[in-house]
Amino acid sequence: MSELRRDPITGRWNIINTDEPMGPEAFEVDRRQPSGTTCPFCAGKEQLTPPEIYAIRPATSHANTAGWQLRVVPNKFPALRIEGDLGRRALGLFDLSNGVGAHEVIIETPDHRKQMADLSLPELEQVVAAFKGRSLDLRGDRRLKYTLIFKNFGLSAGASLEHTHSQLIALPIVPKRVSEELKGAEHYFEFRERCPFCDMLQQELHDDERLIAENKSFLAFCPFVSSFPFEISILPKTHSSDFALIAPEAIRDLVRLLKEVLLRMRSVLSDPSYNFIIHTAPIEPRGWDEYHWHLELIPKLTKIAGFEWGTGFYINPTSPELAAKALRETQLPV
Amino acid sequence: MSELRRDPITGRWNIINTDEPMGPEAFEVDRRQPSGTTCPFCAGKEQLTPPEIYAIRPATSHANTAGWQLRVVPNKFPALRIEGDLGRRALGLFDLSNGVGAHEVIIETPDHRKQMADLSLPELEQVVAAFKGRSLDLRGDRRLKYTLIFKNFGLSAGASLEHTHSQLIALPIVPKRVSEELKGAEHYFEFRERCPFCDMLQQELHDDERLIAENKSFLAFCPFVSSFPFEISILPKTHSSDFALIAPEAIRDLVRLLKEVLLRMRSVLSDPSYNFIIHTAPIEPRGWDEYHWHLELIPKLTKIAGFEWGTGFYINPTSPELAAKALRETQLPV
Repeated sequence: MSELRRDPITGRWNIINTDEPMGPEAFEVDRRQPSGTTCPFCAGKEQLTPPEIYAIRPATSHANTAGWQLRVVPNKFPALRIEGDLGRRALGLFDLSNGVGAHEVIIETPDHRKQMADLSLPELEQVVAAFKGRSLDLRGDRRLKYTLIFKNFGLSAGASLEHTHSQLIALPIVPKRVSEELKGAEHYFEFRERCPFCDMLQQELHDDERLIAENKSFLAFCPFVSSFPFEISILPKTHSSDFALIAPEAIRDLVRLLKEVLLRMRSVLSDPSYNFIIHTAPIEPRGWDEYHWHLELIPKLTKIAGFEWGTGFYINPTSPELAAKALRETQLPV
Repeated sequence: MSELRRDPITGRWNIINTDEPMGPEAFEVDRRQPSGTTCPFCAGKEQLTPPEIYAIRPATSHANTAGWQLRVVPNKFPALRIEGDLGRRALGLFDLSNGVGAHEVIIETPDHRKQMADLSLPELEQVVAAFKGRSLDLRGDRRLKYTLIFKNFGLSAGASLEHTHSQLIALPIVPKRVSEELKGAEHYFEFRERCPFCDMLQQELHDDERLIAENKSFLAFCPFVSSFPFEISILPKTHSSDFALIAPEAIRDLVRLLKEVLLRMRSVLSDPSYNFIIHTAPIEPRGWDEYHWHLELIPKLTKIAGFEWGTGFYINPTSPELAAKALRETQLPV
């Protein structure tokens, strides 16, 4: 029999096949990458992207020319644009506003052949430092309320270019999924005066069944209420609500763990497409005792169908206990 | 520039490309069907499914043999099972219960070659009458709180068999997406003492930009806050919270409109994969003045990626105004 499991923060229930959980070999992994003739993210093709907002490049090199190690550029096909007023207004029953916001692309390396998991630790530190730097910079814009950092890797995970990159969208509203987490976390805090994420960390460490890897500052595990097979959470071990305030030592620990987890996932699932997102507190107000930033990593193995759309909860054919064991035990090449 | 549009019921914001909305030809339509050697839903293969719960068949034919026009059987790989106790319990922070519920399959016709859109009106009436009949029957089970009827058509929409079928899942909890709609609708009702869905119908009829088709009892339109391109809603024109109380005349009107809309969608989008769901009020309490049952139909044209997962809202590259115009104006073969 399956189990219904409830997330204590969002109240989301998922149906999890704990009885006969599917192993990694049971999934048809979609390895397709988006195709295209000229890659606009390769060195030498800087004129194919909008002008760079930020780059790591030698002092002797010019902006928007080759020689860089990392570039941040506006998305050429942005979901939201930075110019203009919000112009929030009613239309009968409905509310609408102009699509104001930022939509940036972090090109993680000039090397087209590397996946994020192949970047060196110093290269990955530059990527996470760019996430932090861009997040802090956008706080100057008072129209923006929330910054989401995310990555789509592989065609079935929604990537439109193969060259490794992440994205940042800054929004004029706090998105629904984050509000739900905040509300649930506040509710828990009112009752217990503790951060629910800190409590969850303690429980995962104690239960010991769903752990994948850890180091001094971070823990990686498969969440008890996983919506998707082989879903992975990475949380800072000490309370911290704001990703953008991450210290340089913590960046070093985060990228070590992230690289290890990406390699473990690639090994167990034979190079799947995936998404990750970083959930952090809204830009204002600061300093949440009840919220804890975290990274959610989801290999794309299942399809979202009518049931998920109709209910808002998920049928997960694999238990997080089985997934964590496979991820923990896989041998990585030395 | 895009628009941010807010659903007055759920509070969900979506980003909609109203500036350069993508037309139907811009989408890569995935027409793949699940493959398999022996179809368990074909006439003569009744022994390949669990024993039937309900069937339309001549009085002279035996259960689980050929001769039927429609069969309802338990799902062979159920997400939930009807036997056992809920056994709701805590596990530290978390809640869990046993996966108790019903998971049934409605095999709409013995003819493997027909899509739902190809069924005759009398055949479609039998399908909707089966949705109603099964919903009412399961109300006898006091453990069950909610019944969701849905359909997955095509591989990319999550179908695992090609032979046309719908599904019913009865759940021991009211699912999150429905609770959100109920809460939002109650909030609106407190403020205005009117059903928000009834008001939305009036506004859609008045705005006239997003209508697809209508008849005496039902209206089909592309919702103002569409999450997906070419998303379609069908609502009863007079207030009704409970799908399972649909009258026989209304079934006739519903299937006429549903067939027309499926044919229009197939024509405009060249036979896309799709999902539909029926949202109705929970089994108890009955008689919601503030809730209105409805059918949501979504062709599978886009991928859910990091942004959607992280925010809970959607980037829709097509405006519902463009989608409705294309659906309304396409010529159907006579």
